[in-house]
Amino acid sequence: MSGYPKSIKNVISEFKKLPGIGRRSAERIALELLKRDNNDALALSEAVKNIVSSVKECKVCHSFSEGDFCDICSSPARDTKILCIVEEAKEVYSIEDTAGYKGVYHVLKGKISPLDGIGPEQLTIKYLLERIKEKKFEEVIIATNSDVDGEATSIYLAEEIKPYGVKVSRIAFGLPVGGSLDYVDRDTISKALECRKEM
Amino acid sequence: MSGYPKSIKNVISEFKKLPGIGRRSAERIALELLKRDNNDALALSEAVKNIVSSVKECKVCHSFSEGDFCDICSSPARDTKILCIVEEAKEVYSIEDTAGYKGVYHVLKGKISPLDGIGPEQLTIKYLLERIKEKKFEEVIIATNSDVDGEATSIYLAEEIKPYGVKVSRIAFGLPVGGSLDYVDRDTISKALECRKEM
Repeated sequence: MSGYPKSIKNVISEFKKLPGIGRRSAERIALELLKRDNNDALALSEAVKNIVSSVKECKVCHSFSEGDFCDICSSPARDTKILCIVEEAKEVYSIEDTAGYKGVYHVLKGKISPLDGIGPEQLTIKYLLERIKEKKFEEVIIATNSDVDGEATSIYLAEEIKPYGVKVSRIAFGLPVGGSLDYVDRDTISKALECRKEM
Repeated sequence: MSGYPKSIKNVISEFKKLPGIGRRSAERIALELLKRDNNDALALSEAVKNIVSSVKECKVCHSFSEGDFCDICSSPARDTKILCIVEEAKEVYSIEDTAGYKGVYHVLKGKISPLDGIGPEQLTIKYLLERIKEKKFEEVIIATNSDVDGEATSIYLAEEIKPYGVKVSRIAFGLPVGGSLDYVDRDTISKALECRKEM
């Protein structure tokens, strides 16, 4: 690849920086862009330029938004009595994909992680508590992940939120739907037993 | 992903069009671009925009070039008595990577393929024959691939070039270096036997 003209080398090296793209894939993409209609490359270039200028943070839930408030926070169809707390904005969209949740969200922008030097003040917990104080939610669902830091964050949040007199719940962990005991790790099985429900 | 803001959806859909990138990877890339320094996204956007405006075709060999003539054709260090014919421009760079070839190239921009309606006139064969007529090469190496169309193209080219009184050769096909008979397909073994050299 050393012999390619500079503009091809530039595309290869920029693509190589992206997650999951190695030198070979980057090269293939660069050659493909040259092969195709120029408009394809220009559309890609524009889309990439726009993503950083257009995407901001919702002032309410801290998820992705193109305006001051995201589509979910500004929708009159959402149930503003239920709040779901997630670590990252992308998790909002994973939950949205299920189409089963109609409440609103709060994005922490990380989790408490003493080893990485991340305490509650580095997250959006201050704004979360302000929201809870003002809005009188009926239920707050903590949907941080089940790793050690995610669990610790959920315990910390529950303790902070309970004094406001709101019901706090945690998403369930257990066997994946369609999963078999044979293929599931030990921790998940323990969790599934521990969280068993009466039939 | 249906819930993402438009500019994120745009990036996902543009990346999905690229070879080897599915919906999940495209999503991961879009979120990664948002996470990083804005300059990374802008550099990527610029590089992609520039590739289509900067990369033209060398007027001599039809390989990639940012000017009228590519680096190889305009280099005084190359042996202009030997010409290597390849199907695609990217193959020039595969051969260049070996650093073993010092001659010049000609890119056909495809191969003769009656089933796809591609005849000699759709390729750069006319310009190739003009070059051969003018330049008095000592040897022309045909490096089209070994599939049916590549073979047919090489036979066609050999017949067209020989009347100019130039030595025509074909790159060798055989066992890959380090390859073992156990792991090589039947056609390659036949070819390796057929092209055996006296020791």
